[in-house]
Amino acid sequence: MVLLFVLTALVGVTASGVIRQSTADPVLPAAAGEDLGDGTRLAQYEVVNGVKVFRLRAAPTSWEVSPGNVRQAFAYNGIVPGPVIRINEGDQVRFILQNDLPEPTALHWHGMDLPNDQDGVPGLTQPEIEPGQSFTYEWKAISTGTHWYHSHMHGDQEGKGLYGSLEVVPRLGDITAARDYRLIIGDGPLGFVFNGKSFPATVPLRARVGERVRIRLIGAGPEMIHPIHLHSGHFELVAQDGKRLPLPQQMDTLLVGVGQTYDIVWTPTRVGKWMIHCHIFSHAETHHGMAGLVSIFNVDPPAIGLPLPLQQGG
Amino acid sequence: MVLLFVLTALVGVTASGVIRQSTADPVLPAAAGEDLGDGTRLAQYEVVNGVKVFRLRAAPTSWEVSPGNVRQAFAYNGIVPGPVIRINEGDQVRFILQNDLPEPTALHWHGMDLPNDQDGVPGLTQPEIEPGQSFTYEWKAISTGTHWYHSHMHGDQEGKGLYGSLEVVPRLGDITAARDYRLIIGDGPLGFVFNGKSFPATVPLRARVGERVRIRLIGAGPEMIHPIHLHSGHFELVAQDGKRLPLPQQMDTLLVGVGQTYDIVWTPTRVGKWMIHCHIFSHAETHHGMAGLVSIFNVDPPAIGLPLPLQQGG
Amino acid sequence: MVLLFVLTALVGVTASGVIRQSTADPVLPAAAGEDLGDGTRLAQYEVVNGVKVFRLRAAPTSWEVSPGNVRQAFAYNGIVPGPVIRINEGDQVRFILQNDLPEPTALHWHGMDLPNDQDGVPGLTQPEIEPGQSFTYEWKAISTGTHWYHSHMHGDQEGKGLYGSLEVVPRLGDITAARDYRLIIGDGPLGFVFNGKSFPATVPLRARVGERVRIRLIGAGPEMIHPIHLHSGHFELVAQDGKRLPLPQQMDTLLVGVGQTYDIVWTPTRVGKWMIHCHIFSHAETHHGMAGLVSIFNVDPPAIGLPLPLQQGG
Repeated sequence: MVLLFVLTALVGVTASGVIRQSTADPVLPAAAGEDLGDGTRLAQYEVVNGVKVFRLRAAPTSWEVSPGNVRQAFAYNGIVPGPVIRINEGDQVRFILQNDLPEPTALHWHGMDLPNDQDGVPGLTQPEIEPGQSFTYEWKAISTGTHWYHSHMHGDQEGKGLYGSLEVVPRLGDITAARDYRLIIGDGPLGFVFNGKSFPATVPLRARVGERVRIRLIGAGPEMIHPIHLHSGHFELVAQDGKRLPLPQQMDTLLVGVGQTYDIVWTPTRVGKWMIHCHIFSHAETHHGMAGLVSIFNVDPPAIGLPLPLQQGG
Repeated sequence: MVLLFVLTALVGVTASGVIRQSTADPVLPAAAGEDLGDGTRLAQYEVVNGVKVFRLRAAPTSWEVSPGNVRQAFAYNGIVPGPVIRINEGDQVRFILQNDLPEPTALHWHGMDLPNDQDGVPGLTQPEIEPGQSFTYEWKAISTGTHWYHSHMHGDQEGKGLYGSLEVVPRLGDITAARDYRLIIGDGPLGFVFNGKSFPATVPLRARVGERVRIRLIGAGPEMIHPIHLHSGHFELVAQDGKRLPLPQQMDTLLVGVGQTYDIVWTPTRVGKWMIHCHIFSHAETHHGMAGLVSIFNVDPPAIGLPLPLQQGG
Repeated sequence: MVLLFVLTALVGVTASGVIRQSTADPVLPAAAGEDLGDGTRLAQYEVVNGVKVFRLRAAPTSWEVSPGNVRQAFAYNGIVPGPVIRINEGDQVRFILQNDLPEPTALHWHGMDLPNDQDGVPGLTQPEIEPGQSFTYEWKAISTGTHWYHSHMHGDQEGKGLYGSLEVVPRLGDITAARDYRLIIGDGPLGFVFNGKSFPATVPLRARVGERVRIRLIGAGPEMIHPIHLHSGHFELVAQDGKRLPLPQQMDTLLVGVGQTYDIVWTPTRVGKWMIHCHIFSHAETHHGMAGLVSIFNVDPPAIGLPLPLQQGG
């Protein structure tokens, strides 16, 4: 039963729907699809004549960053980050963006190899999308791996919450993992947030000793570079901006700049509560304790039947 | 004819004079040599008894950063950045620096393996060069690749414009490219500038689909680290501080800190206008649109006769 | 005699006591063990039933950052940084931490693979250590290489000086070097400090032409990312966060973020005074000259009997 869980949690086989991780209490409104166990939700789509069609609505919203701390945000489909767009390499995809903001907008598909008029730079590759208007983007998914999408209209639209993860599953050779999490780092008008939330409101992450845990770190900024530190030994850096490293490298702290994505893989060796946080302390702590860019991994013992070579003595 | 252009534009064979790129309107005064198509100009020299002799004059100047935005700058030979010094590995080089600033100065050859008394640190390796005085540096070019030179006297001299690219062409094994651009990033008293200019005054860069485009990113600071993002897929990082990477790595956003140089190679796959910009939005955008650390690549169709495997369907 | 010196200076054979570098005037109080030639001192320990037992006392102190510039610091054993903890892979180690601060504290062993209840995060893995109380940490040294330890209680405890180098010597395959220095970078309430001191109070470092000089760069923050530049050509990056790079890489300027450690190896080719400094000029210079994050390498000629292939002509 537990083993079955581990197998079905393996990612990279198909683009959506197979990720069923044991999650903590979902805290997001049911404005999108499946809860991915990290405070994000999978984008839903319909297939029209072989094209995957996604609908995104940009609109103002009140967003509770942490208990009692409500900010005026801009959101895609009512959630910060916007829904996780996970597609397969080779997919033809269409995005119908409805602008219900009080100002113009445009959407950039960061890291994508696509036609210039789909690149989403207002005034350069397309006209601004005026309030009340919609705009349709369409392209073929060529650039595999972890990318992201965000407003390219005024830096503060991005800072207010108009961003999300854009994950293109390669046909061959994806990063294998038993868990697949993402942490999108924000430092704009919403404060210091992982996936739209400040500690203690960040969603606790779950893992088991011996599992390969994939974490997609995305620097959404819009302003700062963050050294992200994971307690408990080290992790392995396996991809940058969606591109596999020719030789993976091990470390415990990684600089994540605005616009960058990194895929890291961590194999916990010990049960317990392990922090992942920005190591700039004013981003992660106050005199009242931890705050902001902090999440906790709850690491449980290995599932029954797994070999236990990684559990070290005290 | 077009093919001939491509061939003659290949760099790395000799140190100067062979680069003839199709350029946009030159905007710099004719204070130095050939326009390199990116807002910089090649340094001129004369050969005296086998030594390449360059003359640099540091002086105050008024510098128009963008239309109507004139700042009080310090410049080598009247231009920001100073002239591009491109020499061959093994060259014996001499630099006669005339200080016409109202304050002392000294010049550091960043990244060069040279005698300590030519290193340009005032008070440590040489006396300060007083206003009205000159100082002669001489050394043999050993450290190949992309480096830079800058004032090492007070951080704000560098910030005011006293820096330039220092390119040592290796005898063997240079990075091959059809285009060779440099973007020197400044964030001091001149504001946020690429090659001394803020968008929209930055020089538009040209390329063709399928060409290998070399871009030398140089962090002149003097204060900040900039995540530089190129739209349209990805580029390849091939060298850091003039040293070839043992394994090149692909990405779309690169952190460039003060003092660092990176050589990246981009092969455009699509025609159009592709941005290259700092992804910290306050460095690249205001509520009135793009500004500061932004340049545009104008990518044209491939030259006749080139194979077209890279042009993707829409 | 000189050759003998070089041989005994080789590190990595045993964990302590063999490092005897020629040092400049020691400037630290004799509050800990051997002076390591860079302004740090080796931690002393006693062996109790096969366990190496270290005693650390956290207390306020007045700390002279540079001549006449005295700051109110927090220190382990009276010195900033705290004593260098150098142990062997496989050692069982115990740390008795006495809190003589006016506030609670806790100590994190950054980069260590250890039991969760020894991780030192107050409120998560242990209770806060109240003033006047002590707490004992004990774990087995598994994670080899350069790491560090620091207070995990309020970011400003770290900034006030509660950090030190934590070096686990691998049984096999350590980085070979004739010199072994560390530069811990601080940017908090003590100002911009290398090993607790601002230039000109930083300890001058010594080396000879042709020697392999290991420098352990540690970003103690607690706030900033520093591009560290070494004059004179280039160095080789060989490890990050204690982990050997699969392929070492050469550069002359390296970004060191809060929480990161890097091991670099430099082989000087020229005699003279070579700077190592943060290239953000406001961290390394004022209008009165160099200050803050600056140290000087005094490079002497090679020892008699060494081959001289590295000494280049002028």
